[in-house]
Amino acid sequence: MGAFVKTSESYRPGARTMPGRYYTAPEILAEEQERIFARHWISVGRAADFAAGGDYRLAQLAGESVIVLRDQQGALRAFYNVCRHRGTRLCDAAQGRLSETIQCPYHAWTYALDGRLIGAPHMHEVEGFDKQDYPLHPVALAQWEGFVFANLAPEPRPLATAFAPVLERFRHFNLPALVTVRRTAYTVRANSKLVMQNYSECLHCPTIHPELSTKLPYTSGANDLVEGPFLGGYMEIKPPNASATMSGRACGLLLGDLPPDDRTRAFYYTIFPTMMLSLHPDYAVYYTVWPKGPTESVVACEWLVHPDSPASPGYNIEDAAEFWDRTNRQDWRICERSQLGVASRMYAPGPYSPRESVPAAWDREYLRQLGHHEL
Amino acid sequence: MGAFVKTSESYRPGARTMPGRYYTAPEILAEEQERIFARHWISVGRAADFAAGGDYRLAQLAGESVIVLRDQQGALRAFYNVCRHRGTRLCDAAQGRLSETIQCPYHAWTYALDGRLIGAPHMHEVEGFDKQDYPLHPVALAQWEGFVFANLAPEPRPLATAFAPVLERFRHFNLPALVTVRRTAYTVRANSKLVMQNYSECLHCPTIHPELSTKLPYTSGANDLVEGPFLGGYMEIKPPNASATMSGRACGLLLGDLPPDDRTRAFYYTIFPTMMLSLHPDYAVYYTVWPKGPTESVVACEWLVHPDSPASPGYNIEDAAEFWDRTNRQDWRICERSQLGVASRMYAPGPYSPRESVPAAWDREYLRQLGHHEL
Amino acid sequence: MGAFVKTSESYRPGARTMPGRYYTAPEILAEEQERIFARHWISVGRAADFAAGGDYRLAQLAGESVIVLRDQQGALRAFYNVCRHRGTRLCDAAQGRLSETIQCPYHAWTYALDGRLIGAPHMHEVEGFDKQDYPLHPVALAQWEGFVFANLAPEPRPLATAFAPVLERFRHFNLPALVTVRRTAYTVRANSKLVMQNYSECLHCPTIHPELSTKLPYTSGANDLVEGPFLGGYMEIKPPNASATMSGRACGLLLGDLPPDDRTRAFYYTIFPTMMLSLHPDYAVYYTVWPKGPTESVVACEWLVHPDSPASPGYNIEDAAEFWDRTNRQDWRICERSQLGVASRMYAPGPYSPRESVPAAWDREYLRQLGHHEL
Repeated sequence: MGAFVKTSESYRPGARTMPGRYYTAPEILAEEQERIFARHWISVGRAADFAAGGDYRLAQLAGESVIVLRDQQGALRAFYNVCRHRGTRLCDAAQGRLSETIQCPYHAWTYALDGRLIGAPHMHEVEGFDKQDYPLHPVALAQWEGFVFANLAPEPRPLATAFAPVLERFRHFNLPALVTVRRTAYTVRANSKLVMQNYSECLHCPTIHPELSTKLPYTSGANDLVEGPFLGGYMEIKPPNASATMSGRACGLLLGDLPPDDRTRAFYYTIFPTMMLSLHPDYAVYYTVWPKGPTESVVACEWLVHPDSPASPGYNIEDAAEFWDRTNRQDWRICERSQLGVASRMYAPGPYSPRESVPAAWDREYLRQLGHHEL
Repeated sequence: MGAFVKTSESYRPGARTMPGRYYTAPEILAEEQERIFARHWISVGRAADFAAGGDYRLAQLAGESVIVLRDQQGALRAFYNVCRHRGTRLCDAAQGRLSETIQCPYHAWTYALDGRLIGAPHMHEVEGFDKQDYPLHPVALAQWEGFVFANLAPEPRPLATAFAPVLERFRHFNLPALVTVRRTAYTVRANSKLVMQNYSECLHCPTIHPELSTKLPYTSGANDLVEGPFLGGYMEIKPPNASATMSGRACGLLLGDLPPDDRTRAFYYTIFPTMMLSLHPDYAVYYTVWPKGPTESVVACEWLVHPDSPASPGYNIEDAAEFWDRTNRQDWRICERSQLGVASRMYAPGPYSPRESVPAAWDREYLRQLGHHEL
Repeated sequence: MGAFVKTSESYRPGARTMPGRYYTAPEILAEEQERIFARHWISVGRAADFAAGGDYRLAQLAGESVIVLRDQQGALRAFYNVCRHRGTRLCDAAQGRLSETIQCPYHAWTYALDGRLIGAPHMHEVEGFDKQDYPLHPVALAQWEGFVFANLAPEPRPLATAFAPVLERFRHFNLPALVTVRRTAYTVRANSKLVMQNYSECLHCPTIHPELSTKLPYTSGANDLVEGPFLGGYMEIKPPNASATMSGRACGLLLGDLPPDDRTRAFYYTIFPTMMLSLHPDYAVYYTVWPKGPTESVVACEWLVHPDSPASPGYNIEDAAEFWDRTNRQDWRICERSQLGVASRMYAPGPYSPRESVPAAWDREYLRQLGHHEL
């Protein structure tokens, strides 16, 4: 599902889909990993996931296992999940709570939560060995709207610079304070870019999502971010529906102090390269899309509501969750059929219509970031 | 199983099996796909499979999904299964009946059954867009003896030219009129060429098929097509057996108006590159052998009988089907052991005997078609 | 688990683990197969496995299936498992008893147990064909301490030369006479070298094997083979324990006429490249470690005891077998975590301590044999 265009300011006549190799070639995926996933700010969770000192979660970035943790001083930090001794993976469980240290389970090298090596049995017998030379390798970390972003680049561009166009834009949605009430994940046998493109237009809604189309007419609304790494816009929720739910009713309290217009709108944005953010008056959905291979992706989803919602009368997140579970499965199925087709020798870039201006802009951003200026 | 040689006119002293890489290397399979499977007439079914206008089946050729259909005027046609908009696979089910059109399930681009694009929502907003520029990509189609052949080559050699040596040869077997009464398919963990070679000689019959050998003595008969893309010959059915069945009895009516000699013979032919055709007085078996990787194949089989057979007294296709199910499984097992052996670094081309003159000729044809004139 | 160093004669300050590609790259595995597994004496079983003439077992060496057999004259022989006719794998079952010959199941080419081709149906029709030109391809075979070693090299260095440092060293353990009483095998999702290194040091024992450490203190003992293809040493069995068993009691008779010191010691050696030999007063464990891919290995284990042990009072091999099953599984698990870590882009060779001098020496031998003199 996704936002669509009314205004065509970002549409360039003659815009076409990308060549097939971008969806099938292992070499392209390897380039993506290096030039995009290993250099950009990648969304790895929410600050609220780390309640107490020692709480950690593992993230996968460009094939790397990264430990994201809150240290005992309350700061969020991230490290490569690799012991400096013989390379052993330090943390195994996807999440957990560490004691005051990270100890390697193999030969007991021990690190403080700020990464310093503080114990290394028998290494004092090695002449010239200095624990200061073997801290954990750090990974850059930053936050935006309560979401945590990691960046493998040794000297990353500051997130505040990279996110300048949207730094304040969603402030009224109260995102850092929302609570996660539901999580799910899907495996999709399609290239992750097909998932991002699919989210970015609603021209497919009448054929793929007949039920959704009765609540979110695909010709309503407008795109308001039409070029660059942040893309998307809104659709009007068609009365008498109050939200994008099975019943059409709101499933919880308003997310924040929303202006009247935003109380009847649904917003759909992509945050390049992997994040998708759906904002409804009463709930948000936070997606991350992870390439698992040239032809396979995993999509992780979280449903966020106002912290007072779960205890409020009429709260019913299932009403929204089922709406999107059905819609998302319809989308994954068609993405999988696209994957099969674009692998054909006869597939060639086809023409985008003005109502596919956002996927066209997403493709342009992707190719720019990949450094492929000429196709 | 397969035909054998009595006359040795096609045997060349010193003929040897092919080097191991032809059975194991992904590069060789890729060459095969391009030079053989994407350029030759490949058997994709029988005309009788398409009873009514709109009936379609999917075929897989050189990694391509191809829609084979009968249009509303009664003509058979074939198209790449790829939408011209964003490349989506149009048809998903292996077979079915289309309405008057093929509609892409993603953004509703709609094609007539002759491939013309007749609907493309919102594309009229694109300046210069002309539906005539986006027909489905056609695939060449032709028929021989009721079998349908597809050819991915842009300008294929006419089938009538390619099949000249056998155009009329099997006329008395009445093949176009026969009815398919049974289908099955096997996965074989062996290169498809090992399956073709195995079918092409009966020197292995005494060791591999002791039961079959009592009905079809491996030293009987003669090969009558001994060089080129059509190869094989006949064996004598040993009295008192009347056919190649478990019981030895005929399992149905004579296929056609057979001359007396052919009423006691079984014919085994290969139609390069994937088809095998077994003709008995009372039934035929139509095989196609599909490479799924350098070391895996799928063999599809159909049993064909006279259209009046199923309603005739004494009809018992299971008697033939079980005979070949047992025989075929014995063959697949030994092909799989051959596959394991030819992957060895010590395997080197070994000597063919005069009784393996047909596999030797098949290898020559294969290498010619692959353009490997020197080994 | 493994031996450790007290004396540091083989430790070189600054010794480091190997770069990550040695544990992940398919190219390195291919080099290993050619330069190590296809050129060295590789342990493929025990002479006692071949009780009678015709007994055979299949071994896998560098991707090759090899038939190891005892011929009718009592000699052990080995051959590539490849028919000289069309390459078929001759023997299929992992072990069995042959008649006086090996007959190919495809076209009945028949070989004597010394490899001579003695039957080839219809090949006499081929002018110039001589059975003498088509014997089975032999593989060199030799024995040491009752273990059988095969070598794919066309002209291998004599085993007596290669094994000179250990030819007599274990004589008092009576190894050729021991009986195998238990076999098992494990699949480990780690490079085989990580398994060899893990076996070669006990610095990890306090963290990984807390129970074992109460019976075999990791700071006890000494390494006595510290450079080259044979590496290891001993640990002291801590009283009141008499052996490395769950109960601490001996599980059988003494293996041989052991000097008093050796009755309270456990010896752990690696025999480059795949064999590991654990010697306790009352039982031995014979391991072979087989790479199945860059990141997967199979470890085969056999428990050997004095031939009179099984009938003796107090015999309880399960007491030892369970001890090592637990210990080995702890080891495989940490090897698998090492594998995950060393695949990281941030993994770099880390410093070995003096207590890891044996793995450091093993790495040196490996790199020498691979011909990688500079890293």
